[in-house]
Amino acid sequence: MWQELLPVGRDGRTGGYRRFAWDDADRQCREWFEAQAQSRGMDVETDRNGNQWAWWGDADAGDALVLGSHLDSVPDGGAYDGPLGVVSAYATVDALRAAGITPTRPLAVTSFADEEGARFGIACTGSRLLTGSLDPDTARGLRDREGQTLAEVLAGAGRDPAYLGRDDAMLARIGTFVELHVEQGRALVDHGEPVGVASAIWPHGRWRFDFTGQANHAGTALMEDRRDPMLTYAMTALAANKQARLAGARATFGRVEVRPNATNAIPSRVLAWLDARAADPSVLSELVDVVARRAVDRAARDGTAVEVSAESETGAVVFEEGLRDRLTATLGGVPVLSTGAGHDAGVLAAAGVESAMLFVRNPTGVSHSPYEHAELDDCLAGVAALTSVVTHLGASGAA
Amino acid sequence: MWQELLPVGRDGRTGGYRRFAWDDADRQCREWFEAQAQSRGMDVETDRNGNQWAWWGDADAGDALVLGSHLDSVPDGGAYDGPLGVVSAYATVDALRAAGITPTRPLAVTSFADEEGARFGIACTGSRLLTGSLDPDTARGLRDREGQTLAEVLAGAGRDPAYLGRDDAMLARIGTFVELHVEQGRALVDHGEPVGVASAIWPHGRWRFDFTGQANHAGTALMEDRRDPMLTYAMTALAANKQARLAGARATFGRVEVRPNATNAIPSRVLAWLDARAADPSVLSELVDVVARRAVDRAARDGTAVEVSAESETGAVVFEEGLRDRLTATLGGVPVLSTGAGHDAGVLAAAGVESAMLFVRNPTGVSHSPYEHAELDDCLAGVAALTSVVTHLGASGAA
Repeated sequence: MWQELLPVGRDGRTGGYRRFAWDDADRQCREWFEAQAQSRGMDVETDRNGNQWAWWGDADAGDALVLGSHLDSVPDGGAYDGPLGVVSAYATVDALRAAGITPTRPLAVTSFADEEGARFGIACTGSRLLTGSLDPDTARGLRDREGQTLAEVLAGAGRDPAYLGRDDAMLARIGTFVELHVEQGRALVDHGEPVGVASAIWPHGRWRFDFTGQANHAGTALMEDRRDPMLTYAMTALAANKQARLAGARATFGRVEVRPNATNAIPSRVLAWLDARAADPSVLSELVDVVARRAVDRAARDGTAVEVSAESETGAVVFEEGLRDRLTATLGGVPVLSTGAGHDAGVLAAAGVESAMLFVRNPTGVSHSPYEHAELDDCLAGVAALTSVVTHLGASGAA
Repeated sequence: MWQELLPVGRDGRTGGYRRFAWDDADRQCREWFEAQAQSRGMDVETDRNGNQWAWWGDADAGDALVLGSHLDSVPDGGAYDGPLGVVSAYATVDALRAAGITPTRPLAVTSFADEEGARFGIACTGSRLLTGSLDPDTARGLRDREGQTLAEVLAGAGRDPAYLGRDDAMLARIGTFVELHVEQGRALVDHGEPVGVASAIWPHGRWRFDFTGQANHAGTALMEDRRDPMLTYAMTALAANKQARLAGARATFGRVEVRPNATNAIPSRVLAWLDARAADPSVLSELVDVVARRAVDRAARDGTAVEVSAESETGAVVFEEGLRDRLTATLGGVPVLSTGAGHDAGVLAAAGVESAMLFVRNPTGVSHSPYEHAELDDCLAGVAALTSVVTHLGASGAA
């Protein structure tokens, strides 16, 4: 199952994955998901928002136990972020059946659309649309880097963008969602444990910094006549790093677009995106405010201008404590971790769906990189944990 | 004539020009050049290296007086940088004929290929190949941002890349080259003069800074675990600006490429190009050395690495003083200016071809920008100056 998915959307040069919402690699991942469902005799459907569901039992009975994650990637992402959760969900179905266990609740495997937001800039688009936390008109108008809107891209993929939006019928089916995910840090390494349970997701967001100056000739414009937005950006990137360290938070400028981006031209414009996260929402907003103030101060010195706009902001998510404690106890007292990464489980939890997450150890902590990794033994421990969770939350049989 | 050229390769959004070597806009510019030649009864040819020539008189008689510049642009460049020299050359032919003046030497209008280097990274490719200062194998292997080689692009444009290289037969025809160009600074504004003569071109070059770190998740990687090349780049960009100010030189980072360039991923790699220029070659090499040392020092602090490689380096060019002084005297003692910008006339002068340049006043000094401008009266003064130069350097008639 894993071997069939590995080559899809892999860049031969970097070894990283490029599976972006509704592109060809994404289509192949969706076909893989359907084939896996069909080979297990599970009914498979794609909901109004492009999320995929494979059903074991009667979907309409309600109170389903849903396992899964996502199949898309960041540019040059790793093999595990997302797919490990989907593969482990199918492996859990196999493990239950092999043990003669039948769930007492409907069980679904799911893959959410466009979790990474690599193409249209907003993360967890599929789960946000499902729960109504992303407005469908806003979503339809999102543009990729080539200027195509999500509505156009959906239509091109043979889907009707008019269907986007909160899906109460689908939400009514979901009882509990458990997302297994490769850890994106090294806490489980420090704990010496292969599997952990999530306590909370830090508040986080993406802010666009639009630095504008004046294009000019790099060879002839006097240094003192320049209005170079690259300088304002550079100082802002350094300030973000420094302020995040001081605040015990995280801040990253990982995406930059320069215009005209020519060696012999002073830029007219630098667009840069700040990703910032903190355990506490007030720390986060103060961090972004300080970075924005530093940018504005430096812009005055450079003769440039800067505009800061929030592209997405997600509040803190604390996973439901009763479920979390039951899972931790079921798994024999595994570590409980908070994370700076957003997940579909966080979106569902914020919308009132009972949700939990399991993490699988990552030996280096590296993620969003071709070097992301999990050992096979730890992945199998993840499947065993997920199987144990299903048995605990709603199954009966010969085990 | 000017009106027909204005719409070619213009971006409707920015108002800037995008005419890159061998693209569709470049092809249209070449067709415009040929049509202008044909409408004047001038023989037109494209040489082995893609430079265009329109002849008035016998090309093979030798000692030709050549007027011209280039038609390609930087991304979002202005209307004048390049085209003003070609349009003024044709306008000079018209002015001479209207006055009944016939050159005593063959007269050519020329447009050199790929002066800006916007597509393949090396400026003045056409004149460098013609004079042999760019190796044809190196040129054929140059790649554009899509990975296509110059050889492939030339073949796609119906040209045989095997013909590239020093063209002694063409060089033997050229007696004197005079390039008229919009000024890329404000010296003529300060002088209160519409036209000036070039004394020298500063030594200049392009250096590629390859910053490498480790891709990781922007939300989960601890600040102290990161190896973020964006920080190393940002400090280097600020250092380049500061060092250029201290040295009375010019340094610009105008082109940056980030991988994977995703908001929620710490970059694995930042490629950035330094454009640096100084009046004195030792000042220039010291400037580049200091910036590279700062980059290496900061890389050690960031846990990243940086490699610096020279992509092109051009020594100082001092235009032949006898010709320069004759032109200055002919034009009634106009200002004599040095420039930080490279030009085809500099390449030809460095190869021993008698060359000179005229500059036309630029009210703001802005260049490589949609805001680049020259007043019509000043453009006409440029044509009058060029006509006077031809009359002085080799023409007889009724004037």
